[in-house]
Amino acid sequence: MTTQTIVLNGGSSSGKSGIVRCLQAILPDPWLALGVDTLVDAMPAAMQASEAGIDFTPDGQVKVGPDFVALDAAWAEGVAAMARAGARVIVDDVFLGGAASQQRWQKALAGLEVLWVGVRCDSAVAAGREIARGDRIRGMAASQADVVHEGVLYDLVVDTTRAESLACAHEIATAVSSREARRRRRGSPARLRSG
Amino acid sequence: MTTQTIVLNGGSSSGKSGIVRCLQAILPDPWLALGVDTLVDAMPAAMQASEAGIDFTPDGQVKVGPDFVALDAAWAEGVAAMARAGARVIVDDVFLGGAASQQRWQKALAGLEVLWVGVRCDSAVAAGREIARGDRIRGMAASQADVVHEGVLYDLVVDTTRAESLACAHEIATAVSSREARRRRRGSPARLRSG
Amino acid sequence: MTTQTIVLNGGSSSGKSGIVRCLQAILPDPWLALGVDTLVDAMPAAMQASEAGIDFTPDGQVKVGPDFVALDAAWAEGVAAMARAGARVIVDDVFLGGAASQQRWQKALAGLEVLWVGVRCDSAVAAGREIARGDRIRGMAASQADVVHEGVLYDLVVDTTRAESLACAHEIATAVSSREARRRRRGSPARLRSG
Amino acid sequence: MTTQTIVLNGGSSSGKSGIVRCLQAILPDPWLALGVDTLVDAMPAAMQASEAGIDFTPDGQVKVGPDFVALDAAWAEGVAAMARAGARVIVDDVFLGGAASQQRWQKALAGLEVLWVGVRCDSAVAAGREIARGDRIRGMAASQADVVHEGVLYDLVVDTTRAESLACAHEIATAVSSREARRRRRGSPARLRSG
Repeated sequence: MTTQTIVLNGGSSSGKSGIVRCLQAILPDPWLALGVDTLVDAMPAAMQASEAGIDFTPDGQVKVGPDFVALDAAWAEGVAAMARAGARVIVDDVFLGGAASQQRWQKALAGLEVLWVGVRCDSAVAAGREIARGDRIRGMAASQADVVHEGVLYDLVVDTTRAESLACAHEIATAVSSREARRRRRGSPARLRSG
Repeated sequence: MTTQTIVLNGGSSSGKSGIVRCLQAILPDPWLALGVDTLVDAMPAAMQASEAGIDFTPDGQVKVGPDFVALDAAWAEGVAAMARAGARVIVDDVFLGGAASQQRWQKALAGLEVLWVGVRCDSAVAAGREIARGDRIRGMAASQADVVHEGVLYDLVVDTTRAESLACAHEIATAVSSREARRRRRGSPARLRSG
Repeated sequence: MTTQTIVLNGGSSSGKSGIVRCLQAILPDPWLALGVDTLVDAMPAAMQASEAGIDFTPDGQVKVGPDFVALDAAWAEGVAAMARAGARVIVDDVFLGGAASQQRWQKALAGLEVLWVGVRCDSAVAAGREIARGDRIRGMAASQADVVHEGVLYDLVVDTTRAESLACAHEIATAVSSREARRRRRGSPARLRSG
Repeated sequence: MTTQTIVLNGGSSSGKSGIVRCLQAILPDPWLALGVDTLVDAMPAAMQASEAGIDFTPDGQVKVGPDFVALDAAWAEGVAAMARAGARVIVDDVFLGGAASQQRWQKALAGLEVLWVGVRCDSAVAAGREIARGDRIRGMAASQADVVHEGVLYDLVVDTTRAESLACAHEIATAVSSREARRRRRGSPARLRSG
């Protein structure tokens, strides 16, 4: 079936945003990019640094409270509804809960054709890129690099440690188009039989 | 009924974003702020300055093509789904199509309790604020100031020409809470009769 | 003499940046805008939230340490050198030290023709605008509104409480051009003597 | 002598900014980061897309006019004055004029101890990173990758094609500290003779 949603999961500073922008540039159709950063930006400023909301500790830990969880769940429902209404959507997220985070998205995206992509980056390299970015709390990259992938199932895993964002995006775009090609072959049984 | 969505409509540089941030600060519950700027940021960069997407002419006109319209419709469905899933949502938009734009949102938000708010600002004042912001194409404020309100029906109209963002937000918050109070009175008929 | 530098002093959220952008738009020559925000952005990220650098307390107080003071002094020398090299410069600053802060700039700008402008805004109004901006620590506007003007001498004071940024910019531009007109008259001594 | 200014030259999307932030993080003293982007941001908005100012053509060419050149020269004088007043300064620039651009900086920085660093990146890789960033006009990276280095003399050249920003920053920091070590040895002739 045609891919309706691409979900990218990876730790902070693993390179998700760069891959998303490359995907938007190289995929033939227009795709919406909606990430966890979009959600956090949409929340009241007071929810940041709040126990009920989302709290970034000085050593890079992220803790989310009940208000964040509730808005996050509604957000996932809304993103799924956009895809069901015909928008192609690239989601980028940080599965702080590992497999449980994926199950939450699987439930929200039920019935949609999803490509699950893991974005890996060696912890030390991601920590260095965190310094180069300068706009993130130090320690997030290292603390999230492995834990976000625990128990998560992917259709494809890319690794930005040595590969450029654009190369990773091309791998993902190839997976999208080959899935589409398979769908087309399966979708025309008469021709296949006559072949 | 409890307000589930607040829709703010006004021209560019009319002061919507400032009011939204004040609303998020003063409303007792956490509200998500999702505006047309969020949508445009989520679109591929190539859709800007494209006939199929959204095009800003040098004199401040905005033209949208079929790709923009399609993603915009799916976006509205998704925002409505977030509200139905329990998130309180503040939408800010620029009704370039006037009443037709409102009807599109009315259809997407069907069944939800919506507070429709017009954000007005004298054209000349908005044009001055556009210069002070420095990040918008000159001419958008003036060209949109009146046309976006044509035929649109509101529960409340605020005017930022002389009122501060925070004062406008308080007007809106009062409308939200008085509607809530009415709902409570109507919602408990037994007690009212026994009283 | 021709104004070579315009120094705007006012508390956080008093509206300096908007006035600066309007000035750049309406003044006939190109002016560089270099504010304290430019300096802070140029400093290492680690100097923020550091006792030696600049520290923003949760209640909106700003404390600067020896490293900040040293870089700030060199910065002022550099800005003055730009003006002496022919660049027209608009400086916007927050005189946390009141008159002492002005003296520091007077020393750096020695020999240059400076227009000193106070940017006032009622404390409560500035505090409301701080909420509307959403990107500043709450409390800075109120704590700085008056103290930054203590003992400071101005050629012109504008008040953004009720006046728009563009109107304030026009007041300042008028002061620049009338000073220029006076210089031209004084610059023709023969006529003055014969008068 | 102690390095007072580090000048990084490289094409758009070659990775200068990331290296600068890493340098600020790892160098023992606080360094100011002042790049050509700081200058462009300080200019009036109207100078962008202006023949007298700076014009970015749709294919990624950059053209600068007389107003830009004049402000740029004054800017370089001011940056040099900051360094002479004791601030350590990291300059990052794009030498569109190659050797002539370096001579301009050499003149402004006369008498200061400067470390000249070339930041190279393979044209194709830089072009890919330009897509991943999403905020630059396509084509700048490729058109600038080689031309900015023509005839320029460096103390050190780093290449971000395969090296991370942090690794490049460590190379530069090592050059700064070994130069400092040499200065210390030369600075104590008595001990050297007695040795």
